[in-house]
Formats: sequence, structure tokens, C-alpha cells
Amino acid sequence: MANSKYEYVKQFEQPDILLPSTWIVVRIDGRGFHKLSDRYGFIKPNDRRALDLMNAAAVEVMKELPDLCIAYGVSDEYSFVFHPSCQLFERRSAKLVTTIVSTFTAHYIYQWGTYFPSTPLQPPYLPSFDGRAVLYPTTRILRDYMSWRQVDCHINNLYNTTFWTMVQQGGMSNTDAERELQGTVSSDKNEILFKRFAINYNNEDEMCRKGSVVYRQYQLEDPKPESKSGHRDEDEAPVDESKTSKSQQDKLRKLRRKAQVVVDHVDIIKDEFWERRPWILSGKPGKLPEA
Amino acid sequence: MANSKYEYVKQFEQPDILLPSTWIVVRIDGRGFHKLSDRYGFIKPNDRRALDLMNAAAVEVMKELPDLCIAYGVSDEYSFVFHPSCQLFERRSAKLVTTIVSTFTAHYIYQWGTYFPSTPLQPPYLPSFDGRAVLYPTTRILRDYMSWRQVDCHINNLYNTTFWTMVQQGGMSNTDAERELQGTVSSDKNEILFKRFAINYNNEDEMCRKGSVVYRQYQLEDPKPESKSGHRDEDEAPVDESKTSKSQQDKLRKLRRKAQVVVDHVDIIKDEFWERRPWILSGKPGKLPEA
Amino acid sequence: MANSKYEYVKQFEQPDILLPSTWIVVRIDGRGFHKLSDRYGFIKPNDRRALDLMNAAAVEVMKELPDLCIAYGVSDEYSFVFHPSCQLFERRSAKLVTTIVSTFTAHYIYQWGTYFPSTPLQPPYLPSFDGRAVLYPTTRILRDYMSWRQVDCHINNLYNTTFWTMVQQGGMSNTDAERELQGTVSSDKNEILFKRFAINYNNEDEMCRKGSVVYRQYQLEDPKPESKSGHRDEDEAPVDESKTSKSQQDKLRKLRRKAQVVVDHVDIIKDEFWERRPWILSGKPGKLPEA
Amino acid sequence: MANSKYEYVKQFEQPDILLPSTWIVVRIDGRGFHKLSDRYGFIKPNDRRALDLMNAAAVEVMKELPDLCIAYGVSDEYSFVFHPSCQLFERRSAKLVTTIVSTFTAHYIYQWGTYFPSTPLQPPYLPSFDGRAVLYPTTRILRDYMSWRQVDCHINNLYNTTFWTMVQQGGMSNTDAERELQGTVSSDKNEILFKRFAINYNNEDEMCRKGSVVYRQYQLEDPKPESKSGHRDEDEAPVDESKTSKSQQDKLRKLRRKAQVVVDHVDIIKDEFWERRPWILSGKPGKLPEA
Repeated sequence: MANSKYEYVKQFEQPDILLPSTWIVVRIDGRGFHKLSDRYGFIKPNDRRALDLMNAAAVEVMKELPDLCIAYGVSDEYSFVFHPSCQLFERRSAKLVTTIVSTFTAHYIYQWGTYFPSTPLQPPYLPSFDGRAVLYPTTRILRDYMSWRQVDCHINNLYNTTFWTMVQQGGMSNTDAERELQGTVSSDKNEILFKRFAINYNNEDEMCRKGSVVYRQYQLEDPKPESKSGHRDEDEAPVDESKTSKSQQDKLRKLRRKAQVVVDHVDIIKDEFWERRPWILSGKPGKLPEA
Repeated sequence: MANSKYEYVKQFEQPDILLPSTWIVVRIDGRGFHKLSDRYGFIKPNDRRALDLMNAAAVEVMKELPDLCIAYGVSDEYSFVFHPSCQLFERRSAKLVTTIVSTFTAHYIYQWGTYFPSTPLQPPYLPSFDGRAVLYPTTRILRDYMSWRQVDCHINNLYNTTFWTMVQQGGMSNTDAERELQGTVSSDKNEILFKRFAINYNNEDEMCRKGSVVYRQYQLEDPKPESKSGHRDEDEAPVDESKTSKSQQDKLRKLRRKAQVVVDHVDIIKDEFWERRPWILSGKPGKLPEA
Repeated sequence: MANSKYEYVKQFEQPDILLPSTWIVVRIDGRGFHKLSDRYGFIKPNDRRALDLMNAAAVEVMKELPDLCIAYGVSDEYSFVFHPSCQLFERRSAKLVTTIVSTFTAHYIYQWGTYFPSTPLQPPYLPSFDGRAVLYPTTRILRDYMSWRQVDCHINNLYNTTFWTMVQQGGMSNTDAERELQGTVSSDKNEILFKRFAINYNNEDEMCRKGSVVYRQYQLEDPKPESKSGHRDEDEAPVDESKTSKSQQDKLRKLRRKAQVVVDHVDIIKDEFWERRPWILSGKPGKLPEA
Repeated sequence: MANSKYEYVKQFEQPDILLPSTWIVVRIDGRGFHKLSDRYGFIKPNDRRALDLMNAAAVEVMKELPDLCIAYGVSDEYSFVFHPSCQLFERRSAKLVTTIVSTFTAHYIYQWGTYFPSTPLQPPYLPSFDGRAVLYPTTRILRDYMSWRQVDCHINNLYNTTFWTMVQQGGMSNTDAERELQGTVSSDKNEILFKRFAINYNNEDEMCRKGSVVYRQYQLEDPKPESKSGHRDEDEAPVDESKTSKSQQDKLRKLRRKAQVVVDHVDIIKDEFWERRPWILSGKPGKLPEA
């Protein structure tokens, strides 16, 4: 029995190949994590176990997909970045996004017990994530995207830290704390924390203040003096690499697999992070650290 | 600190709303399941535990998303169908696809131990799935899509059953069996099974021969005599329902949640299945079975 | 000198094939026709010459592209409809839209002198048109689209007729007429026309009241008694025809070229128009009128 | 009569906004110009009148749309380039493409008589054009696109010049000339022209050898010594300008309208052209030439 009679339905599949030579960011978000964090008793404002579990899952995604350059996570979201030269899955959008979402979910569920040993999952209320791909045409804009997420992390974390301190240590009601914080700027919140609770926000956990950066570790490089932002060659790189052969790409993947994937909590807005780790934006593996 | 300086990067997000009033099929596929089935010792040609696990995960997806009309699974793939009137997530493609992929993955990983009690998962080699959405503009074409998958199931299962019987019971090498089957048609394979191994293919497990259909159970209806294919009203339905209000949609969702989600292994190519379950294609809940 | 070094730039071209088996409507609009109608002294509220020129250009587009089923024009806009089975240019969106826009523009400019013999074009202020494609998945929705345009024609024309009569015959200022008409309904405008100016709106020019329908003329058919709306077979038609071979399509094109393209000013909201001209929605040429 | 009953059909219009901060190239092509050039007796291999008419129409498009940076034409095709910072029509693809196609067609038809005074247009066989938009994410790739078209121009023109010289001056049949040229490289063709017909290809008409570049004329600048390719600042420019306000954009448009649009036949592959005219890639108007 041939299947030809019905095979015409394949014509309805539409291509979704992402524009070549652009940065691909796949951002995933926890679905209904507000409710979920209540159900599983996440600690406010930050549950270290939950963040560690997010990071552990992200590390596995980075290991599974050596084409990824870097990832950045905060709260229940994670952004994964493919280089403009990436040819994985022919740059098909749905394939890239669902592979990341599914791999992340699998490890998140699998490792739940490790991070929440006394809080087992309660089906059918399992954590899950949605995701989407966004294209950024230049390195400058990609870096602005990363900065956007880190600034957002800062804004939210300062607010949440202040709010929950006022409630938990100050004994205020949620409504009162919310009302008082309305319209305040950063310096106001810093002052509330410091004056009322003797908390210096800058001493708070770096993971909460800066979010988590995940990347492959090579030997740090000295920033070149004439370089201003580490993306001078941006123009040429994508073109050259998009023309690399399949075998060269496989070779690059192997090299990347050898590097250790690390989780860092550092500033990614300033140039220094990128200048000392040029392999992230160049897409070319650096030197492995000496043993 | 305002985030306005970087917020322009949001402009790069592009809308992906699927054409209204068309059927949406989200098909997910196991990633690298050939290798995975070796690693975890799946029984050939069909591993009942693996299929039951797929079905269990699909049932949870159907329960989680009452907007789904029906799902059909075979081997390591599953197709989930949204009605033309579906407004879930404003019909955003990535959101619909990733929600299904992630929810499916979560339950697949979570329930692994139930179906494979003596074969624990071996990280980092966790099962994962990719997926994509395809639009079908008419009920006729949607049904042809479903038929396409079921015919595919039949073709593959007949081949696999014959091949593995020749190898496992007939003692042939993989290469020899493959060579002999090259160019054969269905009747040839049926004959090999029957003459050499006294196997009547039609008595094989229905789940393997027909695949698995997942839907909400209401009281079966008598097919109307004048109806030819169960999709007479196709034209009106999508329009009317796409205009249903948010509150009506919520009401429909609640009604659907009350129905039991069942797994069936039946012919979905002929009209009968659809005529007796008109709620699947109409998108309107039927009568709940009497207690 | 080979061109291979630069040819990689072709990879950046992205496919834009429109979903099969859906109606394609290409709507074009005059660019800046408000200003243009002043420059060339169009008569208010309707300039017969300008409408005739639009229709003449539309007829040429219909003749040039036998794949078109029907077109509907009002004011400075025209909608051209391709059948769900249309395979022209592999259904590439930009190709379909630009071909229509360019062909229409060419004839509009070329025939300008015929319709405006005493008002020559004044470069660089030449008329031009923009356009876009929209997909409609069912015949019901396509008909609703056509009804939408004709209702819009009616609403605008009744308003414009009343407004300009009040100004031109009633000696009112534009501002006063506009103010008086604010918030009025159809019956109010009809009454103003009838009571103050003894104008029965229903006797006004049909072209202005109904717009212009352009289609191929075959022998009118008697509506079938059991038929309710002329789109019973909608489901099957697209599928069957999308599978017609290239040679069959060429044959259909030749048949269509033989039919006369006519311009009509009739109701296209009710069923009658469509039932008596079933070839428009079926995509199958009717019988040529007897000589 | 309200139109609300049918207005839902507007939901079917899908957005087609082009990715911000990328170069937009709209390439238009003559439809069926091979046949058309026969019908209107175009001179082979190059009809100066036809090329001049193409250029005249392109100049009008450039004047009409000050957002365009540059255009390049060869034979019956023309590429129009919008800057990454372009916000015209909110970067809607169909709107941009059809506006260019329609404006070009209008002027081509209107000016036909000027360039072909003794060969009037023969309706319904009017010239028309199709078009599409392609995105290029970096200046390097945009320049490679431009180089691709100019190399193509060279390859085709050298072939056509040699072929038609062999036929027209050498008395060969089309078939014989074609056969002899099969597999030849540039130097072979140059030699045929020079040895047999004493033609130095480099002395042929520059418009035919180089194609036509259309841009706004400002004072040429001296290339900066440290600059290598005129696109150093590519990264910053798009971002900055995409954030320019509406009023700033209007101001830029006015400035651009003041510049003269010129047609040139020069090398656009090497850096010099771009370095001396930095306004083309920067999107910032230069200094108007002194009177």
C-alpha cells in the first residue's frame, strides 16, 4: 500500500529558516511559575535551589548543543545564543527552539529531586517552559539584548529584595509594602534596605543580583588595547563561517565539546567580560586552560 | 535605573500568529530515538512500554490543553490537533508548539520510571522531542493528514514486524532480511509472515497496527444518514467559533475538562470514527456518558 | 570570471509561498489618491472617468492572468481573487502581488489619456498603487471578505453622496456638512437626500452604489434548489485541483482566456450572484455563451 | 448600516514587517522581457534606448523615495537599497516592494514614448515588472550583493557582446556561435573579439560593461587613510538611526530631496566608490556640492 494518495499534505509544511548571518536568541520562560513557586514552596524573593536547578539544566543544554555560544538566565527564564555562522538544523526556527525547550525541560524534571529532595513533583502539576527565537543582526544589538536582560534582572531583584525584606523582616503587609515602593527609584530602595534593615544591597548574592552566565571556558585573554568593544570583526566573521564546510563545522563542534561549561555571575554589560572571552562573540574556540 | 536604553531590542521580536480558521497540527518527534532505543534496550519491533509511555504523556498534554481536539501517535511521534476556532495563546506558533513539546517532555521524563522500572535514565542521555506546527485549511485535508499518518504507521509496522520476525524467529541476518524485503509489497510481507511463521498480521497488537488515537470521550452518536463524511458544516463552524467571546471560550474549556481523555487503537481513515464522534471535528463538546 | 565568490548572497532570499488550498486576495490601493484627485480635478463625490479607468485596468489584469477568478473594485482600490487551487508562480506571494500591481499600473498609465483626454499626466506626479496578499481559508470567509468590501462601498458612497450634495447643491460649507452628518445612520442620510434635494439614493449610479465586479462570462446557470449558498463542494474542490497536472492547468488557462471578461455593478452579498455563476467559486470554466 | 458583521475578515491580514537594522534590497525584474524585446525590436546585444528608459524610471523612484540609499541596474533588472535605519511604511515588506514596482512601472510606461518615439506601445502587450525584498544583515554582505550583480552584468555582457558580434559581424548562425562559446572563459571571449573583430572589449560602452549606479550626489570625500572598507561603523549606525524620531527622519528626508540624483557607470566592487561617497552606507546626507 503506497502512501502517495495522502502525501500531498506535506506540501502544507512551510519553511522557517532563519535569516543567515544573524544572531539567534532562543529565550525560554517557565509556564505559570508564579503559581508553581507557591505550590512547591519556593523561598522568596529568591530560591537558591530553584536557580541552581535552572542553571544545571542550562549547562546540560549548552553541553548538548555545542553550537551555542552563551546563555544567560534569571528567575525562570533563560536566553540561549547561537552565533551568526550557526548552521545547526539548517537554522530551522521550530527545530532549534523546540530542541532547546525539550532538552531543558527533560533535565529540569530529571534533576528536580536533586535540588528539591524533600519536595517531590506533584503530577499533573509539572514544570514546563515555552520559548521563541529572535534574530539580532549585529553584535552590538546582541550585546544590547544581553544587557537588557541583565538590567531587568537588577531592577526586578532590587525590587523583590526590598519588598520581601519589608514584609518578612519589617512585618509589613504585602499591600503596604507595594504601596510604599510605588514610584521609588533604585536609590530609594537601596536606602530602605540600608537604613531600616542594615542591608547593603551590593553584598547580596551575586547570582541574584547579576543573574547567571553560562559559557565554555578557555584561557582568558588580555583585552587588546586598540579594541573598543570586542566586536570589530563582526562584519567579516559571519560571512566566513557561514561558508565553512560541514566537516569544518563538525571539527569546531568537537573542539567546543572539549571545553568546560561554566556558570558565572558577573557583569555582562561592560566590555570587559566580552574582551577577555573573545571566543564567545567570534565563534572560534579559544585555548583550553592549561592543566 | 530605567531599562529604556536597551528596550529597543524588543522590536526585533516578530509576530508568528497562525492564520485564523485553519486546523493547526503540532507534530512532535523523538530526537535521536534510534540510538536512544538501543541505549535503553527497547524491544524490537515494538516496545509496549515505550508506546504506553508515549500515550501516557500525550494524555497529560490533552488534559493540560483542553483546546486540543484529538491526538494521534505512532512510534516516537505524536500529532496534536487544534480546532480552526482555537484562540489559545492568540494562535502564536512558537508558544503553541513549545508548550506542547515541553509538557510532553516533562511527563515523559517524569513517568519513565513507571514504564521502565528496571531501566533508569542515564544522564546526560535523556529523551527529548522536537516539534513544529502545520496548518490545514479544510477538514478534508486535516482528515487526509490523519490518514497519512495512519497509513504510514501501517506501512512501517508491517515492514518492521516482518523484518524482525525474519531475524528473530527466522535466524536471518539483518542484511539478508533487508535485502529480501526490498521491493516487496504488502501482500508479499503478509505471506512471508503467514507461510513461514504462521503469523496472521491482522491478529497482531492493534496499538502497533493502528497507532494510538487520543480524544475526549462523550456519548457516541449515530451517524446521520444524509451525511457523507462528517465535515458538512466545516465552512460555518470555524467562522462562528472564531468569534466566540473569551468567556464562551472559557466555558467550552471547562466543559472539555470534564470529559475523560481516552486512548484508542482504531481506524481513523474511514468516516465512521469521525461520524460517531462529531465533537472532534465540530469543536463543540458532546454529551457526557451516563454514569 | 566565475561569480561563485558572491553567489552566497542568494541564500538570504527567503521563500514566501502562500499556504496551499486557500483563497488568495490581492488588494491594491491608490497611493495618495486624495491629493492626486485634487491635482487632476476628479469630480466629487464620484468621477466616472476615474472609475472607468480603474475598471479598464482591472479588465486587463484579469485577461493577463487567467488564474484570477474575480475582482472587485471601489474608489481607488481593487481586490483580485485567486482560487485555492491556483498554482501560478508556485503561489509565491511577492511575485503574485507585484505582477498584479505592475500590470494594473501599466494599463492605468497607458490608458489615462483615453479617459482624461484633456487632463494630461503631470510628471513626476504619476498615479501608483500598492498592494498586499491576504489568505482566506474557506469559501464562506472569502465571500464575507467580498461582502465587507461591498458594504464598505455602500457606507462610503452614501456618506459622500450626501456630503457633497449638501455642499454642492445645498451651499453648505464642508465643515457644516461634516458636523451635521456626524453620528447619522443610513436612514438619516437617505432622508436628507430625499427631503432636501428630492434625490432617491437608490436611483443613483449603480457603479457608485455597488462598486464594480469583474469576472469571466459564461452561460448563467439556474441555482440548484437544494443548494444554500453555492459553496457546498468547497472542501473537495481545492484538494482535487491542487493536484491537477501542469498540462491540465494550462488547458484550464486556455479555456478561461476564451471567456469574455465583463464588468458588472450588482449585489455580491446575497447568494444569487454566486449561484448563477458557479464557475467563479468552483474554479471550473462554465459553458461559453452561445453566439 | 454598520460593517461590523464582516469586519472580522481583517484578522486574516498578517504582518510582514522586515527585521529592523538590516539592509533591505528590493530587486525588480522585467516580466517576459525576452519576448518583449523582440516585439519592440530592441537592438542586440544592448539597446541604449531601453537602458536609458530603465535608468530614467529608476531616477524617478529614487526621487520619490528619499529613504533609498542607492540603486543598481543592469539589463531589465534594478536593485533598490534601503538603509538598515529605514522606517518607511514601518518596514512593511509588501508596501515597500509594491510601491517601488508600481512607481517604476508608471514612469517606464509614461516615458516610453520619449525613448522609443517611433515604436509605440502595443496594448495589451505592455511592459511590467515583478519584485521582491531580500534582507542583508551587514554592510559587508550588502556590498557582496552589489558586487554579485555587477559581476553578473560583466559576465552576461561579455558573453552577449561576443555572441552578437559573431552573429552580426561574423555572419555565424546563432547555433554555431552558441556552440563555439560553450565552455569558454573570459579571456577566450576577449580574444575572439580582439583577434577576429579588432574589438577591445574594454572600450565598449561603460553602461553596458558596468551597469548603472543611481545615487544622490554630494561632495566626494577623501578616503580616510586608516579606513579599509568604509564600513567600520556599520555596527553602531543602524542602531542609532533606528532610534531617530519621526521629526528627525522627516528632516533627513528633506535634506536628501535636495541632493541631485545621478546615474553613474563605475566599479562598485572595489572600496573606492564607497569610500569617496560615505553617505551611501552611513545613511547620513553629505555636503551638497558647491554651486
